[in-house]
Amino acid sequence: MKKYFKVDKWNIIEEGFDKKYNRTSESIMSLANGHMGIRGNFAEKYSGDSLQGTYIAGVYYPDKTVVGWWKNGYPEYFAKIANAANFIGINVQINNLQVDLNKCNFIDFSRTLNMKDAFLKREFTLILPGSSRVKIREKRFLHQIEKELAAVSYQIKPLDKKINIQLTPYLDGNVKNEDANYGDLFWNNIEQKSRKKSAYLSMETKKSFFLVSTAMNWEINSEINSSENIEKKNFTGNKINLTADRGEEIILNKYIAVCTSRDYNKNRVREKAVKLAAEAAQKGYADLFAEHKKGWSEIWQESDIKIEGDPEAQQGIRFNIFQLNQTYTGHDPRLNIGPKGFTGEKYGGLTYWDTEAYCLPFYLATHSSSVGRNLLLYRYHHLDKAVENADKLGLKGALYPMVTITGEECHNEWEITFEEIHRNGAVAHAVKDYIDYTGDKKYLKDFGFPVLAEISKFWEDRVTYNPRKDKYMILGVTGPNEYENNINNNWYTNKIAVWTLKYTLQAKDFIKKEFPKKYSEWIDKLDLTEDEFNHWRDIVNKMYYPYLEDYNIYSQQDGYLDKEQKTREELKDEDIPLYKNWSWDRILRSPYIKQADVLQGIYYFKEEFDNDSIKRHFEFYEPRTVHESSLSPCIYSIIASEIGNQEKAYQLYLRTSRLDLDNYNYDTDEGLHITSMAGTWMSIVKGFAGFEVKNNKLYFRPFLPEKWHSFNFKIIFRNRRIKVHIGKEKIKFELEKGKPLKISVYGQDRIVEQSSCITLKNR
Amino acid sequence: MKKYFKVDKWNIIEEGFDKKYNRTSESIMSLANGHMGIRGNFAEKYSGDSLQGTYIAGVYYPDKTVVGWWKNGYPEYFAKIANAANFIGINVQINNLQVDLNKCNFIDFSRTLNMKDAFLKREFTLILPGSSRVKIREKRFLHQIEKELAAVSYQIKPLDKKINIQLTPYLDGNVKNEDANYGDLFWNNIEQKSRKKSAYLSMETKKSFFLVSTAMNWEINSEINSSENIEKKNFTGNKINLTADRGEEIILNKYIAVCTSRDYNKNRVREKAVKLAAEAAQKGYADLFAEHKKGWSEIWQESDIKIEGDPEAQQGIRFNIFQLNQTYTGHDPRLNIGPKGFTGEKYGGLTYWDTEAYCLPFYLATHSSSVGRNLLLYRYHHLDKAVENADKLGLKGALYPMVTITGEECHNEWEITFEEIHRNGAVAHAVKDYIDYTGDKKYLKDFGFPVLAEISKFWEDRVTYNPRKDKYMILGVTGPNEYENNINNNWYTNKIAVWTLKYTLQAKDFIKKEFPKKYSEWIDKLDLTEDEFNHWRDIVNKMYYPYLEDYNIYSQQDGYLDKEQKTREELKDEDIPLYKNWSWDRILRSPYIKQADVLQGIYYFKEEFDNDSIKRHFEFYEPRTVHESSLSPCIYSIIASEIGNQEKAYQLYLRTSRLDLDNYNYDTDEGLHITSMAGTWMSIVKGFAGFEVKNNKLYFRPFLPEKWHSFNFKIIFRNRRIKVHIGKEKIKFELEKGKPLKISVYGQDRIVEQSSCITLKNR
Repeated sequence: MKKYFKVDKWNIIEEGFDKKYNRTSESIMSLANGHMGIRGNFAEKYSGDSLQGTYIAGVYYPDKTVVGWWKNGYPEYFAKIANAANFIGINVQINNLQVDLNKCNFIDFSRTLNMKDAFLKREFTLILPGSSRVKIREKRFLHQIEKELAAVSYQIKPLDKKINIQLTPYLDGNVKNEDANYGDLFWNNIEQKSRKKSAYLSMETKKSFFLVSTAMNWEINSEINSSENIEKKNFTGNKINLTADRGEEIILNKYIAVCTSRDYNKNRVREKAVKLAAEAAQKGYADLFAEHKKGWSEIWQESDIKIEGDPEAQQGIRFNIFQLNQTYTGHDPRLNIGPKGFTGEKYGGLTYWDTEAYCLPFYLATHSSSVGRNLLLYRYHHLDKAVENADKLGLKGALYPMVTITGEECHNEWEITFEEIHRNGAVAHAVKDYIDYTGDKKYLKDFGFPVLAEISKFWEDRVTYNPRKDKYMILGVTGPNEYENNINNNWYTNKIAVWTLKYTLQAKDFIKKEFPKKYSEWIDKLDLTEDEFNHWRDIVNKMYYPYLEDYNIYSQQDGYLDKEQKTREELKDEDIPLYKNWSWDRILRSPYIKQADVLQGIYYFKEEFDNDSIKRHFEFYEPRTVHESSLSPCIYSIIASEIGNQEKAYQLYLRTSRLDLDNYNYDTDEGLHITSMAGTWMSIVKGFAGFEVKNNKLYFRPFLPEKWHSFNFKIIFRNRRIKVHIGKEKIKFELEKGKPLKISVYGQDRIVEQSSCITLKNR
Repeated sequence: MKKYFKVDKWNIIEEGFDKKYNRTSESIMSLANGHMGIRGNFAEKYSGDSLQGTYIAGVYYPDKTVVGWWKNGYPEYFAKIANAANFIGINVQINNLQVDLNKCNFIDFSRTLNMKDAFLKREFTLILPGSSRVKIREKRFLHQIEKELAAVSYQIKPLDKKINIQLTPYLDGNVKNEDANYGDLFWNNIEQKSRKKSAYLSMETKKSFFLVSTAMNWEINSEINSSENIEKKNFTGNKINLTADRGEEIILNKYIAVCTSRDYNKNRVREKAVKLAAEAAQKGYADLFAEHKKGWSEIWQESDIKIEGDPEAQQGIRFNIFQLNQTYTGHDPRLNIGPKGFTGEKYGGLTYWDTEAYCLPFYLATHSSSVGRNLLLYRYHHLDKAVENADKLGLKGALYPMVTITGEECHNEWEITFEEIHRNGAVAHAVKDYIDYTGDKKYLKDFGFPVLAEISKFWEDRVTYNPRKDKYMILGVTGPNEYENNINNNWYTNKIAVWTLKYTLQAKDFIKKEFPKKYSEWIDKLDLTEDEFNHWRDIVNKMYYPYLEDYNIYSQQDGYLDKEQKTREELKDEDIPLYKNWSWDRILRSPYIKQADVLQGIYYFKEEFDNDSIKRHFEFYEPRTVHESSLSPCIYSIIASEIGNQEKAYQLYLRTSRLDLDNYNYDTDEGLHITSMAGTWMSIVKGFAGFEVKNNKLYFRPFLPEKWHSFNFKIIFRNRRIKVHIGKEKIKFELEKGKPLKISVYGQDRIVEQSSCITLKNR
């Protein structure tokens, strides 16, 4: 399976077509622009195995949950991004032969994702009965700036003989979510209409009532012999017949607009889509593409990482950065980042703690601060729902959901929903990350504080005071390591709970001092008292942390050392991955750790640990960690960099960087691991380059992985853009934009200015 | 809701009809005979809320399981006893009025379950338009000896005016299980046929392919004006018209036979049913009923408990004994005892550990030893499946399923299926119970030993050796208290595991000595070695038991005392029951205990504890136990009796005794709590009477609850029947059958003989 795609710095290239690999290629070749996304399906019919996937951000269906035995507090629904009308479709018949790569003969197939300009290109040579050849090319893109627009260019050129062609550009709403729990259809049909060179289709999701209108216009560079309008329920298009002489290239350009009632009044949605599609056709493919390309060039200008000397690593990191920028653009604070983005249906296309713990740093460092701010506002807007959610569990304050789209909990396993409460800490910590990065302390006053205070109230109520030990404990949790459930005193959870309380107290002091009026308002609104603050202080002072005296490190949870102490090396090949080969109870009983847990805490709070202590923790936990979450190796890689274990850092980086391209976990067919891609970015920037933001200053402690000649990346920081180049000999810091800035490199302060750049010898 | 039924020593009487209570009455008024059962539905049409339920022992459908997220090792199906063709149905029209108590006017309704003779009687006076009255009576029974037979007698008597009657005795296979996971139909139609005064219907379960033929014959004591045969898919019967003069009683007797391919070749099933129904009709209602009544009189002769001075308690215990004898008769070793018997669909009508832990003692003491033996053979025959089940979890030996019908696991929650492994101990302990009771040591050699040895192998592999403490532990379990999951070192589980190992080693020594040839065979077949026996001994010697030093008692599990220590008294009314009012995580975090856990172990192994120690354990755990399992109060009642806390023992007994009659848990509409009924029996016999079997001898330490004048019961023990009478003044032991026997009363040996009885002053 691995190395299916050709290595190239800017492209993902599939040469030759392996049907078994089609779903994986479709995931990899997905296009998106934050507003919508499509998998790398073929425009023409394909009767083989495929997941035809078109997804529109925020347009979800509340699918009925499935559970074995209902437990109190379970959510009624699991929101799923609805697979929407297929708009790329063009049915093709040549000399009455249905073009279908599952059945036709063809040669010279290639499918290429161009990451630089964000388009998908596909070509193949069809072999007709009698062996005459027809060259077919398809190109498409989802407009980066005009996000409701997409365009497909379909080209047919007979190489040997004149051919008859029947083309049917269409919109098809007869789609299903593969992940529907009871096979339900998610859409109601509203209307469809076909005109001479255009058509539209409107559908509405059931229960959630999102109206989506998809409109298309098309043009062709040749005379049409006959044409027919098609209007069936959920299907509309135009069937045209024409001929092409040998060597004549027929080009059909299809322009699509997708508008939804999320953005317009219901009675204007269709009208808007029709207008946009018509205007796009007016503008033409080339001009639209030029705009789109310009948009992407600006993205790359800010977020590219360039690696010399390691083309696979280069392709890997660019693929990750590309997909992150496709998935979330920050243009809409109602949206967030699903673990699979627009590339598949697994996990329902919703928001997890991945956003705060993994994705936020990437968006902060590569985009304007409004993008990160929108990620935070998403949670701010869901605060009331999080308070309701805590109340459902009989607790004060706010518990943010494990999985959500509207702020309501969507997951239905008690061990996750009710117990994996550390997610609350990540939401709180994101406030600090954002403010540290942007310096936007007003955010704290206006939006951050109520989120912090409600989360603190939750921790306050969720701890158990143990009078025998005069300690506070947190019982019955699941930590980041989901290979344990219902444990007591997960160190990470206890730690981040205390951190939240401390930070909220600091935030309170800050607001009290700087914004006394707002302070009084919040105190009233949130019903906060000095007694409560004292209670928080007491919890901070008396939190219990499990400790392994034998190893002089924190214990992942109470009783961890009672487990049989084995390492990953003692596993057999047939055991891996554990989640596929072991029963759940065997996993739970084993010492094996799914993903960074204690190390996740050390990653967050590493300033509290000396180097030796970090080393001890790393050396104990890393060999016990199986990294069966895509979110795991990046954190271990960063910590390995931190303690100077460069080889391990690089090795763990590799695991995360090409996870999907090389289909490391054999699950890329289900979609890409979008959120872990931000972790890959962190492995380089926070890990190899040792980048941190502390006290309004940027810190770097870079090293160059042995195999690489150099790498460089940019950091957007408070209206500046700094280019960081780490070479074999030299390290350079270049201010590309903005005012001079003091940074720290290997503990030494330096000033970066626009006219000159800092150059140091690499250590 | 409570006290809906009239108190009576031998009857359960519903006077007046409350539609809201109909499902509950239907559960209470269920009839069964071990082969089949029906809920107390009306013979004539009823359009109001009702669960029409007809169930045939062992005829199940493997329904597709539902889970949120699939985990490795989950079962593919959940076996459910299929709701089968309704055979009691008689459609009734009078003067063209459809008789339907949901719509008609009526007075003087009563529905009575006669427990002595095991029949259901119902009567009411229908008020016709114009106010003329018609008396209607229905009687029915399921034959206790000829278990495939049932009979219904339907009587109509116009009190004021001549009436036209249309009667349609029918068989109706258009039935569904309410608990079907995806609404599937469980049956395929095979054939139906209607003849002059008879009909039959054959259906086959999907997937499991049980063929069930239901045949009926009927007779009427009046001339028929016209008749019509009805044959529709899954429905067959005869529609007849007649007239009845004022005061003339029309009696329709319907005879039913239900035969299945579990008992006959498929090509003979229908023929057999047709023949049996015809023969029954030949014999007539009165004679059939006389046989049936005789069968029940023998049952009561052996298993009745008579209480003087407390009619409610009398009715309660008889209802429990009655239902136990309806549910399981021991005639078929392929059958077992479902928690709801034939009275509802919840829990799928399958086997739980309830059988061994709660039901076995009742059947041992009130029936011939073959009945208990069949319960054990059920598990023996499933040994291979239990080995497969352990293997699925990656473990040696046998893990008996939590829920089963064929030996395969049917439950689909990991915390139960994979972790509630203590059930294995109950299966092992049942071998000891059976042998202690019957003295049938050959059973050990032939069937008991392989079951014990495979369970021991499971424990051997399931423990974790902790070299730091030089102790064995059992991690990641759920104990009997299901209000905790994935805990470490549940004392009860550790204890019963060690007990199994010890008892298996003893059994091995016994077989080696007494049956050396068989011993060698088992050693070979089970691949047992001295090393393995030594390993078992090591586990026995070095098992870790969590202990609460502060209280000088065993801890339910590691860390129990870290929970907030609250008692049941601190709960508010609106909290109870917790499982309905609290979120699952709140329950898990709380100190509240669902059902006997440590106390379950003390109940099993009380000879290892002195009275003070039992008291300490009781006094710690009882106030923390919410008894939200019907299996809980009986165990606490027995222990309360043991420590002389008679008031508490009586109070806990009351809770279990009338659980369903008074609808204590508001769930009797879903069916009766059959298995806990055996616990009620134990509360009296093992609790109040202090009955035990040790070293081939019967022990008694009786007391009389304050409110009672006396109680008596019988014990069947090794071909003897002993009647035990506990009065205010005197205690009497009377040998009704069999040879003299030495018994121990309050620690003093006595001989019971047939001619005389032991009489002691009550203490």
